[in-house]
Amino acid sequence: MRRGGRVVIVILGLGLALAARARAETPVLRYVPKHEELKYTFGGVLPTHRIKPGTRIVSWTEDCFDGALNRPGQKPSEVLVPGRDNPQTGPFYIEGAEPGDTLAIHIEKLDPARSYGVSVAFAGFGALKGTDKTAMLGPDLPETVWFYDVDRTKGVARTHSQDGTHEWEVPLAPFLGCLGVSPAYGEARSTIVPDNFGGNMDCPEVRAGNTVYLGVRVPGALLSFGDGHYAMGDGEIMGTAIEGAMEVELTVDLIKHRETPWPRIENAEWMMSVGAARPLEDAARVAFKDMVRWVQEKTGLGEMDAYEFVSQNARAPITQIVDPEYTLLVKIPKARLPSRSR
Amino acid sequence: MRRGGRVVIVILGLGLALAARARAETPVLRYVPKHEELKYTFGGVLPTHRIKPGTRIVSWTEDCFDGALNRPGQKPSEVLVPGRDNPQTGPFYIEGAEPGDTLAIHIEKLDPARSYGVSVAFAGFGALKGTDKTAMLGPDLPETVWFYDVDRTKGVARTHSQDGTHEWEVPLAPFLGCLGVSPAYGEARSTIVPDNFGGNMDCPEVRAGNTVYLGVRVPGALLSFGDGHYAMGDGEIMGTAIEGAMEVELTVDLIKHRETPWPRIENAEWMMSVGAARPLEDAARVAFKDMVRWVQEKTGLGEMDAYEFVSQNARAPITQIVDPEYTLLVKIPKARLPSRSR
Amino acid sequence: MRRGGRVVIVILGLGLALAARARAETPVLRYVPKHEELKYTFGGVLPTHRIKPGTRIVSWTEDCFDGALNRPGQKPSEVLVPGRDNPQTGPFYIEGAEPGDTLAIHIEKLDPARSYGVSVAFAGFGALKGTDKTAMLGPDLPETVWFYDVDRTKGVARTHSQDGTHEWEVPLAPFLGCLGVSPAYGEARSTIVPDNFGGNMDCPEVRAGNTVYLGVRVPGALLSFGDGHYAMGDGEIMGTAIEGAMEVELTVDLIKHRETPWPRIENAEWMMSVGAARPLEDAARVAFKDMVRWVQEKTGLGEMDAYEFVSQNARAPITQIVDPEYTLLVKIPKARLPSRSR
Amino acid sequence: MRRGGRVVIVILGLGLALAARARAETPVLRYVPKHEELKYTFGGVLPTHRIKPGTRIVSWTEDCFDGALNRPGQKPSEVLVPGRDNPQTGPFYIEGAEPGDTLAIHIEKLDPARSYGVSVAFAGFGALKGTDKTAMLGPDLPETVWFYDVDRTKGVARTHSQDGTHEWEVPLAPFLGCLGVSPAYGEARSTIVPDNFGGNMDCPEVRAGNTVYLGVRVPGALLSFGDGHYAMGDGEIMGTAIEGAMEVELTVDLIKHRETPWPRIENAEWMMSVGAARPLEDAARVAFKDMVRWVQEKTGLGEMDAYEFVSQNARAPITQIVDPEYTLLVKIPKARLPSRSR
Repeated sequence: MRRGGRVVIVILGLGLALAARARAETPVLRYVPKHEELKYTFGGVLPTHRIKPGTRIVSWTEDCFDGALNRPGQKPSEVLVPGRDNPQTGPFYIEGAEPGDTLAIHIEKLDPARSYGVSVAFAGFGALKGTDKTAMLGPDLPETVWFYDVDRTKGVARTHSQDGTHEWEVPLAPFLGCLGVSPAYGEARSTIVPDNFGGNMDCPEVRAGNTVYLGVRVPGALLSFGDGHYAMGDGEIMGTAIEGAMEVELTVDLIKHRETPWPRIENAEWMMSVGAARPLEDAARVAFKDMVRWVQEKTGLGEMDAYEFVSQNARAPITQIVDPEYTLLVKIPKARLPSRSR
Repeated sequence: MRRGGRVVIVILGLGLALAARARAETPVLRYVPKHEELKYTFGGVLPTHRIKPGTRIVSWTEDCFDGALNRPGQKPSEVLVPGRDNPQTGPFYIEGAEPGDTLAIHIEKLDPARSYGVSVAFAGFGALKGTDKTAMLGPDLPETVWFYDVDRTKGVARTHSQDGTHEWEVPLAPFLGCLGVSPAYGEARSTIVPDNFGGNMDCPEVRAGNTVYLGVRVPGALLSFGDGHYAMGDGEIMGTAIEGAMEVELTVDLIKHRETPWPRIENAEWMMSVGAARPLEDAARVAFKDMVRWVQEKTGLGEMDAYEFVSQNARAPITQIVDPEYTLLVKIPKARLPSRSR
Repeated sequence: MRRGGRVVIVILGLGLALAARARAETPVLRYVPKHEELKYTFGGVLPTHRIKPGTRIVSWTEDCFDGALNRPGQKPSEVLVPGRDNPQTGPFYIEGAEPGDTLAIHIEKLDPARSYGVSVAFAGFGALKGTDKTAMLGPDLPETVWFYDVDRTKGVARTHSQDGTHEWEVPLAPFLGCLGVSPAYGEARSTIVPDNFGGNMDCPEVRAGNTVYLGVRVPGALLSFGDGHYAMGDGEIMGTAIEGAMEVELTVDLIKHRETPWPRIENAEWMMSVGAARPLEDAARVAFKDMVRWVQEKTGLGEMDAYEFVSQNARAPITQIVDPEYTLLVKIPKARLPSRSR
Repeated sequence: MRRGGRVVIVILGLGLALAARARAETPVLRYVPKHEELKYTFGGVLPTHRIKPGTRIVSWTEDCFDGALNRPGQKPSEVLVPGRDNPQTGPFYIEGAEPGDTLAIHIEKLDPARSYGVSVAFAGFGALKGTDKTAMLGPDLPETVWFYDVDRTKGVARTHSQDGTHEWEVPLAPFLGCLGVSPAYGEARSTIVPDNFGGNMDCPEVRAGNTVYLGVRVPGALLSFGDGHYAMGDGEIMGTAIEGAMEVELTVDLIKHRETPWPRIENAEWMMSVGAARPLEDAARVAFKDMVRWVQEKTGLGEMDAYEFVSQNARAPITQIVDPEYTLLVKIPKARLPSRSR
C-alpha cells in the first residue's frame, strides 16, 4: 500500500485496504487506451505508463473480440483476427517492483461500458467439443453468436434463443477475465493463457471489492488487464462469457519482499487461491496446496493440520475448462480459521 | 410418487415431494441394520427388504470406518479391515422397478447419530499425495486421526490440532457420502466407487430437503446408502470428511419409463447433475452435458442454445478428487430457466 | 510352476517355463465353451472348471462381439447386445490359489480361429470422438464396419476402404485382449474393464511366448480369457482391434506367497509392467512405479538408482486409450539390468 | 530443398533428401556459439544468423544444464541458474520463410561432444513425484546426480549406483531434446516447453538420419536447437536424459505454402507425428489426429478409413511426461500405407 510516496510493507490479511486512505494524496492515472495501444501478450511488450505503488488507475478495457464483433449478422471467423484475443490495457510498470515482491490490486469498480454483451461458439474452442488439444474427428459444432442486452435498471443481461422462441436473463456480475503480470525468464504468453502470473484466469472473483495478489516476476511487474465479463457460469463451457468492454477502477499496491507463487484473492470474508493447469485435478492440486500453505502462514498450523482444516472447510468451484490451462478457485471463509486453544 | 399402493408417474421437476402427502397411507419401513447385515458393494448382494414405491425408510447407517475407529489412540491401518469401507444399509428391492425407470429418493432427515465425528489421513489415499493410481515414489504422509466433537447446540463439529495448540469448528452440514443402486450388466462395485449408478458420490447435496434421481439398472434397483458425513469441504482432499454414523429418513418413489443416465438432484431452487470420471474435466463434461440435456428437456431449447444457457448460468463445485472416479456437481438455478418469448 | 501335482515355488525371472517340463505328467484340460457358458464379468461368476496348478488349457475363445457380428451388411447397434462384450472362456478355479499368491500364465499358442477378423466404429466409443465420459455435444461419427480376410500364407489380414478404392494389409500378431482374474472384495467388473486384476488390458504382449503374472485376489483366482485380437495398433484408437475368435493354449502355474499388485509380463528378453488408469499419465505412473520396484527386487538397487535406471532404459508404448481405464506398457530389456560392480 | 540459391518446392514424402545433392553448391554455416550467445526461449530473441534455405549448419550445442554441472560433488540447486535450462544454439533466420510455410530439417549428424553425460533428480521435477503442477504435500525426493562415462568404442554410456555397488550401461542413441521455431502471435516460450512449434519435444526420433518438419509461425521461422541427449528411456521419468553437449550437423530446407500444424518426422521407413498436451491422452489425440490427416493426404483415404488404418497400424510410444506439456509419438510404417485396389 502506498501513501504519499512511501512504500509501506503490507501484512497480508491486514492489507485489505480497510484503513482510511488519505485520498487527497493518492496518485491517480486516468487512461483510456487507443486501439493501437492494446497488447496481446503478457510479457514481451513495452509498458504504456510507469506508475508509483498506490496509484489508482481509472481506465477502460476493450472486449475479448478486440471490438470487432459488434453487430448481429457478423460471422466471427470472418471478422476476428487470429492472435487478437483479449486485448490488454497496459501494461503498467510499477516503480520499485522486483521479482520476489507482490502486487496487491484492489479492484474498486467494474462497470459494463456498453449496452450489449456478446457470447460466441467458436470453431475448435469450448468444453463439450473437440479442440486443438482434445483433438477429435468429425464435424465441429456450428459457429453461433448471442447478443445480450444490458439492462442496468434490472441488473441483468437478456438474450433469446437463435430461433427467437425463448429468452433468458442472467444477473450482471461483472469481472475481469484477464488480470496479469509478465511471466518470468523472458517468456511472453498469449492473452488467452492463465498461469501462475495470473493472466486469463476467467475468475469471477476478480471483481469490484476484492484484492488480487500477483507475484512480481520481472522488474516493474508489467501489470495489464482486459477481457471484461458481464457475467459467466462456472466452467465457461462455451468458451466465452457474456463479453463486453468495461470501465475499470483499481489501485495497485506493492508488497515488498513477499513471494506469491500463485494468484491469491481476498476480501473481508474469504481468502482464495487460484490454480491453473491441465488436467483439471492438477489445477485443483495447485490451488489446494497453495491454500494449505496460506493457512499455515496465517495460523501457524502444521502441514497435516492445515491439510485437514482445508479439507473440511474449502469451497472449490471450477472457473473455466476451455483455456490453454484450466483454472479452479479454492476458497476458505476467514471466520473459520483456527484459533489458539485456550 | 406412491400413494396407497398405486404407482404414480411423477413428472420430473414437479416431483419434489412438495405436495401434502397423505401420511396415513405412506408405508413406513423402520430398520436399523445389524452389523452383519451391512454390505460393501453396489450390486452383487441380496436385498435386506422388498419395499413398495412410496415407502418411507426410517433407518440408520454406520460410519465409513465400519464402526471400527471409535476412540483416540487407535491406528487406522491396524483396526480397519480392507474392503470394509462405507458399509451400506440395504440394499432395498423396490417392487416394480425395472431398467429404464428412475428412482426419486426424497431425503427427509439426516441427523448425526453419534456425539463425535472422525477424519483420517490414510496411507496412499488423498488428493495431495501419491495414491494407488497417481503413483509416486518416496515416503507417504503420516497416518493421522482427528476426532471432532459434535456440538448440536451450536451446530458445529469441533476439533484441535495434533499438538493441541489450535482448535477449529466446522458448521454441521450432514449428508450421505453414499447413495446408490446396483450397476448394470452384472457388475458389483466397491462402496468407495461413484459412477452413473450413484454410489460414493460424496456430494454435499445428497442432504435433507433434496430429491436424488437414480436410473434403475437391475430389477428392483437395489438401493442402498451409507457413509454419513457431518460436514465436508469441496474436494474432500484428505480423503475423508468428518465421518459419522447417521440417522436417516427418506422416501423412495418410482418413476416408470424414464431413463436417468447420470444422477440428478433437485430442490425447489436448483437442478443439479453429478458427473463421475477421471480426469476431473471428464467428470465436468459428463455433468455439463447432462445439464444441457436436462435444460433441453425442461424448456424445449435447441442444443446450442441450451449449451449457451448453461455456460452463462451454471455453478460447478468439485465434490471430491480422491475416490476411484472424481465427482463434480453442475447446478442451475431454476428461476433462470428460459421462458417462451412473448 | 507345477510338476506331478506338487506346487513348486517359482522364483520370478527364473520362472519362464524354460526348463524342460515332464510333459507326460502335465495335466491338460481340453475345453471349447458352449455359448451359454460364456461370461461377461471378471468376478461374480461361477467357475466352469477346477484345475490344478501346472494344468495346460487347450481351448478356444469367442470374439469380442459375442459372435454376433459375422457377415457384411449387419448394423452393429442392431445385432450386438449391451453387456455382452468380450465374452470370457472360464473362469478357471486354480486349486490352492489364495490372495497373496500369483498366477504365472504361460501363453503357448494363439491362432486365429476364423478366416476373417472384424473392426468396428461404435457409437460413443473410441479415442478421437466423444464418449460416455469424454462427453461431447454434436453428432457422432458414423457406425462403420471393416471385415478383414485372414491370409495365413502371407501372415496378414487384408481389408479395403468403405468405397472399395483402396486396400491395406496388417501383419498378423495375435494376442488376447482379455486375460484376468476376479477382482478383490466382492467386486465384479465388466469384461471391457482393465485394472490391477488384468482384464481387458488390450496389450499386444499378452501373446504366445510370453508369461503373464497376475496377483490372486480371491480363493481359486478365477482366471478367464477372451477378446482375441489378430492385430492392433498401439492405442486401439478405433475402440476395436482386428477382432476374432482364437485358438488358445496356455499353462497356468501358481506362485505361492508372492504378491503381484499390477500385471507383469516376461519373456527371455523383456520384463514388462502394465498400468491401468485415467488420465493416461496415471496409467504410466502405475506401470513405471511397478517397474522401479521390480528392478529393485531383481537387483537390490535403492529407489533413486532404480528410478534413474528405468528412466534411461524403458520403452513405454501406450496400449489402449478407449476402455474404462487406459492401459500402458513399460518394458525393460533384461540384458541391461545393473550388475554388481567389480 | 535448396540448390544453388533457388527455392525448390519440396513435395512432402519425396522430400527426404534422398536425391544426390550437388554438394559443392550447398551453402554451409559453421558456427560454435559463445556462451553469451545462447538463448533460453523459443521466440522473443534476435537471430544469430540469416541463412538461405538449403544451408547446412555445422555446429555445436551446450547441455541442458547450461554447462554449469560439470563435475561430481556439485549440488544442482546451487550451481544451476533458474531460467537457464536447455540453452539454444541459434535461432537462425531462414530467408523467405513465412507463416504458412514449413521447414524440413534434415539431421545429418549428432555426436556426443563430451566424454561424459549427466542425469539429475531435481527438486519438484519428474514423473513419479510432486511437481509445480501435480502439487503434493510432504517431503521431496533427494536431489541426486549421476555421471555417465561415454564409451565410444563400445557405444554405451556407463554409470554406477550412488553407493558404488552396482553399475549399468545404456547404448548411445544421441538426439536433440530441443528443436523448435518461434511460436506465433508474439509468444516466447521457455526452452523447457514443447508444443506445436516443436521445442523441448525430448523425442528420440529427432536424431541423425531423420527429417523433422516444423510449421513456420513468424517471418524467418527462427529455428534453434539444444538439449543434447546421449540416450533416454521413453517417458524421461527422472526429468532428465543422459544429458550432454552435442556436435550437430543439419540442413534446413524450406517448403513454401505448406502448413504443418504439428511437428512431423520422417525417414525412409516411418512417418511420425508428435503431439504435445496435458493430460497425456490429449497429447495422444493430437498426434493420432495429425497422423489420420497425414494418411489422408498421402493416400486419398476418407476420414473413417484413415482412422481405421491408423488404429490397426500405429506405434505410439510416449516420449516424456515431465515437461510443461507431455509429448507422445505416433508412428506409421510407410510400407503398410494403403494402395489403390486393383
